[in-house]
Amino acid sequence: MSDIRVLTGPEVAAHASRESCWIIVHGKVYDVTDFLDEHPGGSKIILKYAGKDATEAYEPIHPPDAITTNLPPEKHLGTIDASTIAKVVKEVTEDEKRRLVLMDARPPLDNILNMHDFETVAKTVLPDKAWAYYSSGSDDEITLRENRSAYQRVWFRPRILRDVSSVDWSTTILGQKSTLPVYISATALGKLGHPEGELCLTRAAAEHGVIQMIATLASCSFDEIVDAATPEQPLFLQLYVNRDREITRKYVQHAEARGVKALFITVDAPQLGRREKDMRMKFVDDGAGAEVQKGQDVKKDQGVARAISSFIDPSLSWKDIPWFQSITKMPIILKGIATAEDAVLAYEAGVQGIVLSNHGGRQLDTARSGLEILVEVIAALKARGYYPSPRFEIFVDGGVRRASDVLKALALGATAVGVGRPFLYAFCAYGQEGVEKAIQIFRDEFEMNMRLLGARTINELVPEMVDASTLTAHNVLVPSDNLFNATYQPLALAKFKESKL
Amino acid sequence: MSDIRVLTGPEVAAHASRESCWIIVHGKVYDVTDFLDEHPGGSKIILKYAGKDATEAYEPIHPPDAITTNLPPEKHLGTIDASTIAKVVKEVTEDEKRRLVLMDARPPLDNILNMHDFETVAKTVLPDKAWAYYSSGSDDEITLRENRSAYQRVWFRPRILRDVSSVDWSTTILGQKSTLPVYISATALGKLGHPEGELCLTRAAAEHGVIQMIATLASCSFDEIVDAATPEQPLFLQLYVNRDREITRKYVQHAEARGVKALFITVDAPQLGRREKDMRMKFVDDGAGAEVQKGQDVKKDQGVARAISSFIDPSLSWKDIPWFQSITKMPIILKGIATAEDAVLAYEAGVQGIVLSNHGGRQLDTARSGLEILVEVIAALKARGYYPSPRFEIFVDGGVRRASDVLKALALGATAVGVGRPFLYAFCAYGQEGVEKAIQIFRDEFEMNMRLLGARTINELVPEMVDASTLTAHNVLVPSDNLFNATYQPLALAKFKESKL
Amino acid sequence: MSDIRVLTGPEVAAHASRESCWIIVHGKVYDVTDFLDEHPGGSKIILKYAGKDATEAYEPIHPPDAITTNLPPEKHLGTIDASTIAKVVKEVTEDEKRRLVLMDARPPLDNILNMHDFETVAKTVLPDKAWAYYSSGSDDEITLRENRSAYQRVWFRPRILRDVSSVDWSTTILGQKSTLPVYISATALGKLGHPEGELCLTRAAAEHGVIQMIATLASCSFDEIVDAATPEQPLFLQLYVNRDREITRKYVQHAEARGVKALFITVDAPQLGRREKDMRMKFVDDGAGAEVQKGQDVKKDQGVARAISSFIDPSLSWKDIPWFQSITKMPIILKGIATAEDAVLAYEAGVQGIVLSNHGGRQLDTARSGLEILVEVIAALKARGYYPSPRFEIFVDGGVRRASDVLKALALGATAVGVGRPFLYAFCAYGQEGVEKAIQIFRDEFEMNMRLLGARTINELVPEMVDASTLTAHNVLVPSDNLFNATYQPLALAKFKESKL
Amino acid sequence: MSDIRVLTGPEVAAHASRESCWIIVHGKVYDVTDFLDEHPGGSKIILKYAGKDATEAYEPIHPPDAITTNLPPEKHLGTIDASTIAKVVKEVTEDEKRRLVLMDARPPLDNILNMHDFETVAKTVLPDKAWAYYSSGSDDEITLRENRSAYQRVWFRPRILRDVSSVDWSTTILGQKSTLPVYISATALGKLGHPEGELCLTRAAAEHGVIQMIATLASCSFDEIVDAATPEQPLFLQLYVNRDREITRKYVQHAEARGVKALFITVDAPQLGRREKDMRMKFVDDGAGAEVQKGQDVKKDQGVARAISSFIDPSLSWKDIPWFQSITKMPIILKGIATAEDAVLAYEAGVQGIVLSNHGGRQLDTARSGLEILVEVIAALKARGYYPSPRFEIFVDGGVRRASDVLKALALGATAVGVGRPFLYAFCAYGQEGVEKAIQIFRDEFEMNMRLLGARTINELVPEMVDASTLTAHNVLVPSDNLFNATYQPLALAKFKESKL
Repeated sequence: MSDIRVLTGPEVAAHASRESCWIIVHGKVYDVTDFLDEHPGGSKIILKYAGKDATEAYEPIHPPDAITTNLPPEKHLGTIDASTIAKVVKEVTEDEKRRLVLMDARPPLDNILNMHDFETVAKTVLPDKAWAYYSSGSDDEITLRENRSAYQRVWFRPRILRDVSSVDWSTTILGQKSTLPVYISATALGKLGHPEGELCLTRAAAEHGVIQMIATLASCSFDEIVDAATPEQPLFLQLYVNRDREITRKYVQHAEARGVKALFITVDAPQLGRREKDMRMKFVDDGAGAEVQKGQDVKKDQGVARAISSFIDPSLSWKDIPWFQSITKMPIILKGIATAEDAVLAYEAGVQGIVLSNHGGRQLDTARSGLEILVEVIAALKARGYYPSPRFEIFVDGGVRRASDVLKALALGATAVGVGRPFLYAFCAYGQEGVEKAIQIFRDEFEMNMRLLGARTINELVPEMVDASTLTAHNVLVPSDNLFNATYQPLALAKFKESKL
Repeated sequence: MSDIRVLTGPEVAAHASRESCWIIVHGKVYDVTDFLDEHPGGSKIILKYAGKDATEAYEPIHPPDAITTNLPPEKHLGTIDASTIAKVVKEVTEDEKRRLVLMDARPPLDNILNMHDFETVAKTVLPDKAWAYYSSGSDDEITLRENRSAYQRVWFRPRILRDVSSVDWSTTILGQKSTLPVYISATALGKLGHPEGELCLTRAAAEHGVIQMIATLASCSFDEIVDAATPEQPLFLQLYVNRDREITRKYVQHAEARGVKALFITVDAPQLGRREKDMRMKFVDDGAGAEVQKGQDVKKDQGVARAISSFIDPSLSWKDIPWFQSITKMPIILKGIATAEDAVLAYEAGVQGIVLSNHGGRQLDTARSGLEILVEVIAALKARGYYPSPRFEIFVDGGVRRASDVLKALALGATAVGVGRPFLYAFCAYGQEGVEKAIQIFRDEFEMNMRLLGARTINELVPEMVDASTLTAHNVLVPSDNLFNATYQPLALAKFKESKL
Repeated sequence: MSDIRVLTGPEVAAHASRESCWIIVHGKVYDVTDFLDEHPGGSKIILKYAGKDATEAYEPIHPPDAITTNLPPEKHLGTIDASTIAKVVKEVTEDEKRRLVLMDARPPLDNILNMHDFETVAKTVLPDKAWAYYSSGSDDEITLRENRSAYQRVWFRPRILRDVSSVDWSTTILGQKSTLPVYISATALGKLGHPEGELCLTRAAAEHGVIQMIATLASCSFDEIVDAATPEQPLFLQLYVNRDREITRKYVQHAEARGVKALFITVDAPQLGRREKDMRMKFVDDGAGAEVQKGQDVKKDQGVARAISSFIDPSLSWKDIPWFQSITKMPIILKGIATAEDAVLAYEAGVQGIVLSNHGGRQLDTARSGLEILVEVIAALKARGYYPSPRFEIFVDGGVRRASDVLKALALGATAVGVGRPFLYAFCAYGQEGVEKAIQIFRDEFEMNMRLLGARTINELVPEMVDASTLTAHNVLVPSDNLFNATYQPLALAKFKESKL
Repeated sequence: MSDIRVLTGPEVAAHASRESCWIIVHGKVYDVTDFLDEHPGGSKIILKYAGKDATEAYEPIHPPDAITTNLPPEKHLGTIDASTIAKVVKEVTEDEKRRLVLMDARPPLDNILNMHDFETVAKTVLPDKAWAYYSSGSDDEITLRENRSAYQRVWFRPRILRDVSSVDWSTTILGQKSTLPVYISATALGKLGHPEGELCLTRAAAEHGVIQMIATLASCSFDEIVDAATPEQPLFLQLYVNRDREITRKYVQHAEARGVKALFITVDAPQLGRREKDMRMKFVDDGAGAEVQKGQDVKKDQGVARAISSFIDPSLSWKDIPWFQSITKMPIILKGIATAEDAVLAYEAGVQGIVLSNHGGRQLDTARSGLEILVEVIAALKARGYYPSPRFEIFVDGGVRRASDVLKALALGATAVGVGRPFLYAFCAYGQEGVEKAIQIFRDEFEMNMRLLGARTINELVPEMVDASTLTAHNVLVPSDNLFNATYQPLALAKFKESKL
């Protein structure tokens, strides 16, 4: 609109205070003085870069358009004359050097046999803060782990002597074709783990006919992701509802306009959980903030999770559902249902589906796993004649690591299953190729397990194929008799003779 | 009353035998010859200081007025001329030096995220004897640990899409306002862990609107504690009933006169438990005795717990309740109810409440947790139309470490929950500031968890919000097949290539 | 038929390409050019030996007649003039040297007290690839281990004061006498573990009156095994059904002609499981293939298990059963039934028995154990009047390590129990003598346990002798409270004084 | 009777073969040639000492009169002239030296707080063979450990506000007064662990008014033990029934004549169990044999347990009961009942009691614990009106380590409880004084626990005081998800700053 002004380093450096605070991002200069108190990550982290180039700190945790979108045009001051900024000799920390050596030593992708392999590679090669943010759960992380162990409480009852020469595990999710009964669930801040962030997911999903759910808190901007998709590639959108509903309305309608196929409204996060692993990292010291949205100030020392979430509206309630139905024609799915009671309410509110979820164990600790909730939800909906229904789909997420897990959920009544962290770790470890390998592993496992289960199609997965009778048992052991155990001498195996080894 | 006589070191030193035993405490000289056999901690420890200054040994485990209160005036011989006592060059033990270094190295209070952090700091910085006394439970400490694990057997059923912009976890306990549905439960001998002892609790409680229950066996005297409280600060009193009821009557009526709001009579300690950790410390060798009350002689080698408890009356029975009701107008609460049967008897005896408790796992081992008892008590009281009742409140204590634990107990029917050791460890580790931090953590957790649970007030915590169906299962595993386990080779994850690290 | 041509090393070496590929096996020269794409182990491994002597690689994983049977006579080019082949100086690897030292250091056979001892010796002395192939299960190997732990969920109710001077644990299996209520179940590729392979089993079985089930994928050829048996020794045959039914027909009828007493058709392996231990070994790189049968090409990197199984027909279904009944008069047993529903179908299909099995935990992970299935199968058959029946026998396999395990299965209704890996490990560790020792240990255990159980014969093993009420519980623990556990200090035992030791 | 012949070393040394075998024991010379094949410990061990002094090997595992009783008088050749035997310079092994140092370093008896302490001391100071024999159980020792863990599945429901000033835990067992509701159960071969063997028990029992059950296989002879008792001290006798009933008749009638008060017939040992710890010790190599009774030859390599038991009659049955009733007027108790069915048969056979037991986990592995059996037995007897009964008492043994265990068994209906190993370990570690300390610990625990339980006498122990609802659950966990567990990173506690420590 206006002529683009060119500024010099010293000019910018003169504005390095709370009273007048300029920063450089991606070669442009911005006056963020008035924005300091609105920054979801707090003002402290911006002030650290006052008068300086903040690009490197900004990059991994903001979509590129975050600053331009959130700052009024008059605060866009101009471009920087690169030659006028003192070169910062970036020192590579010992930790970072160590990390780079480990990246080189990663197992070849061929050696990756399962989702756990991706996670263990990611755990090793990720910066500590990224690992803490991704892997952490709330409080004692009991729910986080329960999500996995719930699957071990459901056992198969496989049928034999069915002609399983060909088996087909493709399905339709909210009207969209999917080669897997699995969708890529939303996870935040992908650039913490890989420079291309969520685009790794988008491109792999296109390649393999899998559906990606875009996260509100993705590091890549919504439009970047949609631009990276192929024209026919179906995408879903996960939504954190903003305190300012106008922002939410625009966001949703923009998504619909760009062809998104379904809207997953997160309903289990009126406030983000206390994730102690993340808090111990003091991530907030360095600031954090994803797609910047107006919100309240944030307490210190609460980790990246809570820092980035201050805009989320805790007043969201059932009364808001008709409004959502009025602003979009996309199917609406409530993500984070945890009881049969709320599943019934959701059905009666006329939404198109629900995700039984505890937010990957990141919200209320000792909340039950999606799989356990599924059994009670299906029973309650059936009892009211609401299930099965052509207009209502039921999803489950959390803890899935094997195709066999998915088959258990489907046998118990789920339409499809969301998988988040495994795909996240796959691209953190190996980029897009990692995600493709993860999909391939699922495919191999689906083929094998459906054959061994005697189910040729998704429709043949019936409740009788699983024994879920122990699923609801929350077993804890009587504390051990340590004195007895310390005294008891375990049996030994036969001993080899001494040898020269 | 009389002129105060001034005595010299040599004069005192002349009385250093069982036949004539003088000691110096806080600059005063006392003739304790006749008291030797009445000392709850045994005579041996006093004789160790016969003719000498006993202040340092006396200080941490007696309230300051213990000796003046228990010794008749004629045994108060006078003051000591400090210049006449040989200076004892106090040698600091290696252990003590180590402890002081560790005190300096404590994590900054900002890094404390939960109650376990306080405990782990306390465990490290406390003298071994204090840790043994505080942390020990009876026999195999199974109940001590079960108190914690019972909470893991109750799982949440959180409700979503309720407007939780504001949540309120304050409540009223026995008619007193409390900012938390938690009170500070009585724990003994606070000066073993911190020079200011229980006053740390009193001051922090005042600051944050929390109610403290004063322990009969506190290191600080009852009056010291009440004096430290603000005028409007509500206090409760925990009572061990003395064999000499007159002592008890005076004690109770004095408390009522000083404004104490409720009387918690301990009913689960006719004799204190065998706490082996404590016994192994041979604490009794060095003597011990809290607020000194007349009692029987004590066996050696039984640890501090049993040494200090000889005055407790094992004959206390239901027949005594009317007497208590006759001597005080304070609400009477029976602390240590463990069955539905006794809860019914308590209600019918007309007391104002009960604490479902096993005394922090310090009494009868393999007694059940308060949380487990709660379910059976509520059912029994409901069946008789005794619950809910405006004149009868139900408390639970033992094993609470998270606000989520409290919410579980409240959902199942408790009025409030007692928390003892976590606050004790908080002040052992960081003094009053530690207790305040502990309260703050609870507050943060209550806010988050009530939002995530969909409960805006304490009243909205209903039984349907928890699944307690496995609570009564006392699971123990079949002993392991050690030979099979020793032979089985666990699966391995993908291996990194060799690298220069 | 034709004159036998004698070829020289250089002549053979000239055919070392995909276009013309000759190899030497056991002194004979074969043209395998047209066979390359049909080789179940893939063409790559053959090409590695193109123009060379492949005997050493061929030997352990093919029966001697595999190549002659599968290659048309015109491809049998002649014999090799041994003097014309360059001697390959075989280098013994460090691993192999280590293994040989360990073989020498094996515990004397007298020290072997139980089946676990055999396994631990085998684990130590076997080449890594053999151990990986034998010991691996599918996915997380949960079912593999569950097979063992199911037995720990069944407890004895022994009867006393019965005259047990003599006890008899012999029985009849499908009309054949057996000195044990146990048969040797089929396991594949025995020569990976011992140069004499499955013949060790055959000879020991003859010696002790035990019945061996010959595996389709045995390293020794079917005829070698039958030839090694005594005339009156009963043998069973395990069958993988080939995509080419004509091959299967010939195989079955040949077996019947040679006196095999029963046909066990494997019905739980339309595709072999993903066994990650095996896959990590990349066995396929070196090629693999048991009794060579025509099939499809095999994916790389899938381990020996999947490499050798490409010929197996995934279309096998209930419709094929009459055909089997038409081609043989041997009793037909379906091996791999996993539900009551399929047990009923099997009975109604007129077969003579079923094996309740999950294929040693090598197929569908988290499928239930045979023992657990047994209880539901017996109940379903009884409810329909199908059990007990003189024409239908029920077997169980998987996880058996003790005679007491067998007695539990028999008490619950099994006719006999299949034992695979323990006998396999016995001969890997000690050859035929090991198998004999294993049988002897079972015998000792049967004698003792039947006496202690108060059962004098197999018939006296009744359901009331066991308590199987917890058998169907698939218990998983609530994830542990790690912070509490890290803080808790376990009780210690009395300490010894310092001594000079 | 005849003149006592004096023999010389060389004379004896001339008879050092199977054809003529003389040995010296306690200064006497015996011709054991004809006895070689009858020796329960096998002939090999005797032949090792042929022509030599066997006293040292004989001593710990035979009662002193074993040889004189079992050998006809004409084989008693005379006394040895000590001066004529070459002094054997006994070399003290390194193991033995180590053991002696450890004996000196034992914790002072004052430091022993519980039964586990005795066991851990015994484990350290006992010769390996003795520890293996005493501590071992059969097969996988699952029942051995289950005996302990069963008690952790029963939880207390303590009653409060009962006047427990005085509590009384004395009782009457089979008409005999006992200061504890506990009797000392029979354990074999006490001299392996202490030179005075079972006399330690007898003397301590006398001192404290506790009843000892004398073992058939005691190292001290029956008469030695009775001689060591005070005149009024009640003793019970445990009986292994001999294949030669005449021996048994004499033994029982002799016991009755000497005043034994009850006869406990072992009914769960028609053959002794395979105890692998014991077998690995190859004890039999050195020979073994308790009170020598005629029997069959014994297989090698079966450990001391089976070596000493060959005389036991496996034909013992219900038909023999009337015969026992005809030969003695002592109350007859069947030791080793394991089901309700056999408890009913026992009652109907007119015996005076039963011991619910699995022989300390030494016989049938995965047999249930006595405590678990108790619940089903009481229910079955009640249903038939057989319980309670003045003429029938029910005992339980196995796994008791705490007075609280005993109280659980009594609350569930047992008359008293047998305690074996703890007393055995007590005297192995500290002789008679150890046993007295063990009794004292029980006394302290009974006092405390009865008070805390609200039971003033044994009669007040009622079923409502315990919750045994999980007692019959034989829980085994689903095998662990090792890959997930290896990947999960547990939460950490707050970290201390680096310090100089």
